[in-house]
Amino acid sequence: MDAPDHIEGRNPVREALKAGRPIRRILIAEGVPDRGPVAEIVAAAGTAGVKVDRVPRHVLDRMAKGRVHQGVVAEADPYRYRSWEDAVAAAKERGEVPLLLALDGVTDPMNLGSLIRSAEAAGAHAVLVPKRRAAAVTPIVEKASAGAIEHLPVDQVNNLERTLERCKQAGLWVVGLAGDAPQDIWECVLLAEPLVLVVGAEGKGISRLISERADALVRIPIAGRVGSLNAAVAGAVALFETLRRRSR
Amino acid sequence: MDAPDHIEGRNPVREALKAGRPIRRILIAEGVPDRGPVAEIVAAAGTAGVKVDRVPRHVLDRMAKGRVHQGVVAEADPYRYRSWEDAVAAAKERGEVPLLLALDGVTDPMNLGSLIRSAEAAGAHAVLVPKRRAAAVTPIVEKASAGAIEHLPVDQVNNLERTLERCKQAGLWVVGLAGDAPQDIWECVLLAEPLVLVVGAEGKGISRLISERADALVRIPIAGRVGSLNAAVAGAVALFETLRRRSR
Repeated sequence: MDAPDHIEGRNPVREALKAGRPIRRILIAEGVPDRGPVAEIVAAAGTAGVKVDRVPRHVLDRMAKGRVHQGVVAEADPYRYRSWEDAVAAAKERGEVPLLLALDGVTDPMNLGSLIRSAEAAGAHAVLVPKRRAAAVTPIVEKASAGAIEHLPVDQVNNLERTLERCKQAGLWVVGLAGDAPQDIWECVLLAEPLVLVVGAEGKGISRLISERADALVRIPIAGRVGSLNAAVAGAVALFETLRRRSR
Repeated sequence: MDAPDHIEGRNPVREALKAGRPIRRILIAEGVPDRGPVAEIVAAAGTAGVKVDRVPRHVLDRMAKGRVHQGVVAEADPYRYRSWEDAVAAAKERGEVPLLLALDGVTDPMNLGSLIRSAEAAGAHAVLVPKRRAAAVTPIVEKASAGAIEHLPVDQVNNLERTLERCKQAGLWVVGLAGDAPQDIWECVLLAEPLVLVVGAEGKGISRLISERADALVRIPIAGRVGSLNAAVAGAVALFETLRRRSR
């Protein structure tokens, strides 16, 4: 059996249970009272047939390697990447307009988790991350996603350029965020269409190869002097502009 | 002279020097060898005309109050808060429609820094933070703002409710973000007007006293199942929606 992922913290563990993620065992620190979110976790674990063990707090401290765990850690099956094609097919079946978020070179796990959270909230159907030179899904990412990752498939692809070509063949438009693009995102008519939104790394933006494959490059207008946004913030602003355009 | 901010650790001190922050003095523990990052710090301090003193390690331990300092602490001028009223007056003089961001109970310094960065990028004129139960501007916040704080005044106010009343008297509308508000932010006609946008803490939202003072409460529509956004992301989405509405 693979080594388990450790899901740390009350909210992340509760969300993992809610989403039906395969959990091997839940560890709760001795002395943590069985009420509020902890009671919810214990009840949900009971329903799901997941074993709950009380352990000394230092056991959790060691498992969490210094990260905050709030007295609750779950041992879960390692994260399973899921196919974006299945996600798009399911979206179409539900009559929804597909929306994917592709990340080109986002290496910071907190940013990846935040982008997954924002994508889920904005109604995206999957997130694409490349296998190389990019953050993979780790427990830190899962936690930063605040549970959103349990509801939103992440697909790790060998070659993002080739995957974007396949997205196009599947009828999706590819729109990339670029600080120097001539078109404002507010004017981009493609947002309401089946879409892959491509967000690059902070500072570097999206790569040339991917820019060349995009159907459109758009920029988030900046009114200030510093002139750049954090990648997680830029992605969120673009995702919610997409949601807005689809809600009109 | 005000008590200085203590910037602790090799990287933070090096970054503060790089950013040209006014530093009064750098303290290095006796016995720390003058090589690697420490040599860089000594050289940069020399260039900047900043005094470097060798002191017994226990002096740094006491200054850092148990936080990691790696044998290096800088005494920097404390951040100077600036008046939102001056910022609004300056904006009006330039013919701009005032936009303030008020943070109600945002305690995470990374979120505060990120919100300052997003506010600056979206063209806001000042950020209001309450003195109590909220993150103050510290070196961590300054760093997370990626330099935006140099261009955007932050005002620390004694009583946020009373300050919002004064904003209203100055002709600004007060619009609060609330997950359970009946109105979508996309429908809020006030965004193009002189505005204070109020963002609350993640999980808790804005306080009842402040909700009651707001001219409107609006929500960012959520299409997903997790149902909440990180405070820094919610603030950024609202700020850029405001910029969009002002650009039409």
